[in-house]
Amino acid sequence: METTSLQKSFMKLRSNKAFELFVIGVIIFSALVVGIKTYDLPKGLVLFVGWLDNLITAIFLAEILIRFAGEEQKRNFFKNGWNIFDTIIVVASLMPVEESDMAFIGRLLRIFRVLRMISIIPELRLLLNSLLKALPQLGYVMLLMFIIFYIYAAIGATVFAHINEELWGDIAISLLTLFRVMTFEDWTDVMYETMAVYPLSWTFYLSFIFLTAFAFLNMVIGIILNVMENEQAEQKHEDGEPSRAELSDEISELKAMIIELKELQTKRS
Amino acid sequence: METTSLQKSFMKLRSNKAFELFVIGVIIFSALVVGIKTYDLPKGLVLFVGWLDNLITAIFLAEILIRFAGEEQKRNFFKNGWNIFDTIIVVASLMPVEESDMAFIGRLLRIFRVLRMISIIPELRLLLNSLLKALPQLGYVMLLMFIIFYIYAAIGATVFAHINEELWGDIAISLLTLFRVMTFEDWTDVMYETMAVYPLSWTFYLSFIFLTAFAFLNMVIGIILNVMENEQAEQKHEDGEPSRAELSDEISELKAMIIELKELQTKRS
Amino acid sequence: METTSLQKSFMKLRSNKAFELFVIGVIIFSALVVGIKTYDLPKGLVLFVGWLDNLITAIFLAEILIRFAGEEQKRNFFKNGWNIFDTIIVVASLMPVEESDMAFIGRLLRIFRVLRMISIIPELRLLLNSLLKALPQLGYVMLLMFIIFYIYAAIGATVFAHINEELWGDIAISLLTLFRVMTFEDWTDVMYETMAVYPLSWTFYLSFIFLTAFAFLNMVIGIILNVMENEQAEQKHEDGEPSRAELSDEISELKAMIIELKELQTKRS
Amino acid sequence: METTSLQKSFMKLRSNKAFELFVIGVIIFSALVVGIKTYDLPKGLVLFVGWLDNLITAIFLAEILIRFAGEEQKRNFFKNGWNIFDTIIVVASLMPVEESDMAFIGRLLRIFRVLRMISIIPELRLLLNSLLKALPQLGYVMLLMFIIFYIYAAIGATVFAHINEELWGDIAISLLTLFRVMTFEDWTDVMYETMAVYPLSWTFYLSFIFLTAFAFLNMVIGIILNVMENEQAEQKHEDGEPSRAELSDEISELKAMIIELKELQTKRS
Repeated sequence: METTSLQKSFMKLRSNKAFELFVIGVIIFSALVVGIKTYDLPKGLVLFVGWLDNLITAIFLAEILIRFAGEEQKRNFFKNGWNIFDTIIVVASLMPVEESDMAFIGRLLRIFRVLRMISIIPELRLLLNSLLKALPQLGYVMLLMFIIFYIYAAIGATVFAHINEELWGDIAISLLTLFRVMTFEDWTDVMYETMAVYPLSWTFYLSFIFLTAFAFLNMVIGIILNVMENEQAEQKHEDGEPSRAELSDEISELKAMIIELKELQTKRS
Repeated sequence: METTSLQKSFMKLRSNKAFELFVIGVIIFSALVVGIKTYDLPKGLVLFVGWLDNLITAIFLAEILIRFAGEEQKRNFFKNGWNIFDTIIVVASLMPVEESDMAFIGRLLRIFRVLRMISIIPELRLLLNSLLKALPQLGYVMLLMFIIFYIYAAIGATVFAHINEELWGDIAISLLTLFRVMTFEDWTDVMYETMAVYPLSWTFYLSFIFLTAFAFLNMVIGIILNVMENEQAEQKHEDGEPSRAELSDEISELKAMIIELKELQTKRS
Repeated sequence: METTSLQKSFMKLRSNKAFELFVIGVIIFSALVVGIKTYDLPKGLVLFVGWLDNLITAIFLAEILIRFAGEEQKRNFFKNGWNIFDTIIVVASLMPVEESDMAFIGRLLRIFRVLRMISIIPELRLLLNSLLKALPQLGYVMLLMFIIFYIYAAIGATVFAHINEELWGDIAISLLTLFRVMTFEDWTDVMYETMAVYPLSWTFYLSFIFLTAFAFLNMVIGIILNVMENEQAEQKHEDGEPSRAELSDEISELKAMIIELKELQTKRS
Repeated sequence: METTSLQKSFMKLRSNKAFELFVIGVIIFSALVVGIKTYDLPKGLVLFVGWLDNLITAIFLAEILIRFAGEEQKRNFFKNGWNIFDTIIVVASLMPVEESDMAFIGRLLRIFRVLRMISIIPELRLLLNSLLKALPQLGYVMLLMFIIFYIYAAIGATVFAHINEELWGDIAISLLTLFRVMTFEDWTDVMYETMAVYPLSWTFYLSFIFLTAFAFLNMVIGIILNVMENEQAEQKHEDGEPSRAELSDEISELKAMIIELKELQTKRS
């Protein structure tokens, strides 16, 4: 495949350090604009900020087109999840948001531009990848925890609903209330209220707190151990030290050599 | 022991993947039914959900009978704790719950069907087993913590009872209050109340918080270390690398061989 | 030193398993009596419980005298910290507590009898020893944390005293308020109050929370690492595996032998 | 460079143990004076404490001059960050603070004298250095966490501002509110308020709590692993044990020797 001179210049631009810094600068600036818009601004400034917003959208669009044009094989561009992520954010910003209802959603979408900070800084991308990799390993502990939550919420909604509809009205509200109890946020108020009717209901709360705390602790320890094992496995690979098995092999070779030597001598004598 | 053709077909069904998936599906569906029942439903739906409930009970009963019939030696069936667990849950659902009082307990018992999720998914069963195995190792730290709680509760109930009967009335209430203090839930309100009478009572709360926090920390570290040691012991066993002691043995063999060689040579000379 | 026959029988009694179990039983019973006394009891029961109390004191006194009499060298008895601890608790229970003022202190002292549970169960004694051993290593982190607390409390008492005398009146009250902030207990109420006067005072609270959280985290990690190192050092000692240095020595011996062999051969040729 | 006899005597004084203890004593005393000043004192005592303050300033000035005079090369004195730190604190105390406005700042500055405790005790200096060394490694996780906070604050300020101006008025206030939510401090009050308008807004809070908790957990694990690796790397260096690679080299030497031996023998035969 031949690359045109235009494409070549795009490729050059793309890997240019100054270009990258300019894009990071624009992203930080767009984050500041997002922040400024949350303040009550005089009318003139609102117009100016709106104009800045459009400018940032234009720059982002230009940048993504340059990166796309600079890609030798167009297919690979969309194989990279981060490129898709960037494209969606830029395209979402392009949608006309004149109507009042859509304008609100448009404003929200522009906030997500700040996420481009993650896609542009390689270290943050790496960090997020490693965080996401840790998630599936938690799958079964999360499921176990959800089952605990679900059973307690069903019991709570069945037994306590008539005491306080707002806390125990149905299973969804009960789940939220239990999450609140788990974070220890005014949990005694919730407990004292039901203890006034069922004096033994403290067993419900205490058993729930112990179960979830214990499961949470095991989750944390699970992550720590997992990360440590990965780290150690990597290190073993990296430091290039021979394993004990390799040492054993070398000693075996020595033995073979000495046996040979002995045979040589025995033959001669 | 001869297995009849009927038993064989039950054994086949039991280890059938589709059958297992069907049972998991029914358990999830029964969990949803449990959730739905916590909402205010129109009368027609209540009847329908009650009918669904009975259908689920029937399916669970059939499933457990199939598993029992498919067991070659009937005794082994009840040696497995999870089978006993399943049987109890299903039998409990079978009890007639027509009377208003029993109906309430019946509703609660059906909630525990969600726990069958744990007995049917092997990974959750493993997880729970490993959690339960970690418990006894915590025994003495838990006892120490309970002694700390008990002494502080006795002091609190003796000294503060006249200030607030609801928080320090007797040793049981005091234990609950201290658990609340340990979770930092509005603990300053409790403290300020007693400080109004005994200005030095902050020493009571702070020493309690430090003691329990320290004991708790040691408990957590204890679990982490324990899990790590088990992990390492397993790994040592698994990776099949020779130990240093084995390397030392190999080197000793080498020495013996060289000594032999030397003797051979000395003899000849 | 000769032991009389009486002393011998005391020594026998002392190491008797049934005697030990009896003492543990009495301690648990005395803990229950401590708990019962926190309830409002009818007059008859109060007298009975008081009589039980005296009985327990008598048994404890007898037990300690038996243990003392059973000690071959009386000096060693008081070299053991736990014996001193037990003696103090028993002697304190013996003091006459007729007067109303002293009666209160007497009641408190009898609560500490529950601590004898720790001195009688060897595993709890070991656990407490290892907890106490971990404390001095925390010394400097604790000092650093106290300096942080002290400086923030001095600033708080200087700047915020006029806003709320009850929270920032002097340095002692400020230290308590800061401890409350560290436990996140209604800390925003404290902050919003001062922010009404000094809008930037959130910097005070946030910097304090970050500093103490960071120092606390390092303390926890310090303990974990320390415990792990001790554990590993013990394990190395225990498992009896030769160190790499010993392997190296063995290989060096091999070399020396081969050199000898070569010389022998060179001489002969 | 020649050192005068006066300088020599300063150098002696500087490394004198008694002089160091005297300075530590004065620092502790100055911390006590800082604490005392937060209490309401009678007029006479205020004057006396003010006089003590000046005395302490004089002693600190003398001490720093002695240390400076005792330094052989004056340049090195200011290469040490702790010396600069001490000089700034002492010079700041020297500034005249007669006017009422400045007096307040002067009082605050004198509180920082307590920090000299860190600069004078070597163990605290070491501890602080190791804490500061751990900070940059957290850089990217902190940045990621800030991006999460910023996006949620922007959304909160855009969507919830009309519900409660005091909690969601602009992005700065929203950041503070979110920090409050992260510490679980009355976070349900904040949530219930917005849920009254937007019933689904619990997703906002729960996703925020999960994201920050997960990122925080990873930060903690990151620090633990980092500290452990450094520790292990140091230990490897310290314990002087040969690495497996060195053992392998030694075995290779053995092989070479045996090959030589064989060749010798082959030649002879």
